[in-house]
Amino acid sequence: MKILITNDDGIDSKGIAVLAEEMKKVGEVTVVAPRTEQSAVGHAITMKIPLRVTEYYKNGDFFGYAVEGTPADCVKIGIRNIMKTPPDIVISGINHGSNTAINIIYSGTVSAAREAAIMDIPSIAVSVTNHEAKNFDFAAKISRLLTILTLKNGLPNGTLLNVNVPDIPEEKIAGILLTKQGKSKWEDIYEERIDPYGKKYYWLTGTLTETDNDLETDQYAIKNNYVSISPIHFDLTDYNTFKTMKSWGIENLLSIT
Amino acid sequence: MKILITNDDGIDSKGIAVLAEEMKKVGEVTVVAPRTEQSAVGHAITMKIPLRVTEYYKNGDFFGYAVEGTPADCVKIGIRNIMKTPPDIVISGINHGSNTAINIIYSGTVSAAREAAIMDIPSIAVSVTNHEAKNFDFAAKISRLLTILTLKNGLPNGTLLNVNVPDIPEEKIAGILLTKQGKSKWEDIYEERIDPYGKKYYWLTGTLTETDNDLETDQYAIKNNYVSISPIHFDLTDYNTFKTMKSWGIENLLSIT
Repeated sequence: MKILITNDDGIDSKGIAVLAEEMKKVGEVTVVAPRTEQSAVGHAITMKIPLRVTEYYKNGDFFGYAVEGTPADCVKIGIRNIMKTPPDIVISGINHGSNTAINIIYSGTVSAAREAAIMDIPSIAVSVTNHEAKNFDFAAKISRLLTILTLKNGLPNGTLLNVNVPDIPEEKIAGILLTKQGKSKWEDIYEERIDPYGKKYYWLTGTLTETDNDLETDQYAIKNNYVSISPIHFDLTDYNTFKTMKSWGIENLLSIT
Repeated sequence: MKILITNDDGIDSKGIAVLAEEMKKVGEVTVVAPRTEQSAVGHAITMKIPLRVTEYYKNGDFFGYAVEGTPADCVKIGIRNIMKTPPDIVISGINHGSNTAINIIYSGTVSAAREAAIMDIPSIAVSVTNHEAKNFDFAAKISRLLTILTLKNGLPNGTLLNVNVPDIPEEKIAGILLTKQGKSKWEDIYEERIDPYGKKYYWLTGTLTETDNDLETDQYAIKNNYVSISPIHFDLTDYNTFKTMKSWGIENLLSIT
């Protein structure tokens, strides 16, 4: 089995090292990851400047390919140019910090896996729910086992799995749940500050308003110490609104006053 | 009516100027847009560096606020800090180039409108289907009329409209269609080149494989000279796969071998 591994925290982060090591137990691993941290880049891709790729060594051993670009860039160039044949699966992570509810939209980790799904390759995004995460080993084990189960069952083209693992010791995990994207979202606050030269600038902060209260949602599942596994896709059409808008008379838009 | 206008081509682009002028006919316009071009940034937001906002003047007249950030940043800070009261609607555009099918995923224009939808504010993303677009006036008129129709009918929280207008004179437009996101996607090619210092680098190029052949899809509609209007949202859960995955036995993942 050929496995492409990427992330958004950068090729030198701990999460990707633990994941690559674990996945070597079940397949041939290629790591293609951003040279520097790319959190919250969403599904950005690099088009206006050239991409550079360099070999990355850890303690003298070849570890993978570092790309001066985004997580989605890594998956694209990893599959199109670096790997000789396409991988059987792409795994993005292990992210330092959760990717649930609205955060899926901003996530570089999830976007990398989504780029693989766009290319009809099964993929999994994996996150541990703490920016200072310590428990990567269990998330790596989940990634390995879920890879086996996913390739056994198959995923429809265009669908990926978004996995979030609580940052607690394995024995405290309450269980594993199939979930949906939650509705929790951010109450943003821009802190206004003045720089040493007297100019105003803003820092984005805020708090997550946790409106989810159902174990079938990712956010509530992780809050209750469950591993959360959600199937997500990139068909953004709102089919319900598509139906209700048929009564709007869109075709006569030019004649409204 | 209060209207927030943004884009991803930058505050000095032609599309946003034509849009702002047209929308002033029906409401009070505030422009908050990226200082520089931000195409293909997806739903990136700025968190690790401060945001700076400056007043932007055109021919000596105040035009709007320039943000050293992404389209999604502009909507967040525009609504949270710059506008005294939230807008009734957010319009993102007019983009130079189409945002249909898979391109919706990469689009800064659509992500800005989506950020408004996340904040429960109705929003519209508008694009003209040519990077060297010439026919902005008709797209601006569509934006104005669709704003009126949208505020009259209302959109569910979390839903936005993605509008694509063919870059042809108004009299050649075949009509206006309610559409869904198409399935067409890119066959990427990374061109390999050598820089003057002997180092390899890559440019992303490629061709759009047009698999859509139904006027109910955005890509086929614009190809046939129709204005395309699609309701989209950010609930990424794949509900069909959620159902089929109930038979996977995810809860027993740790005991598979």
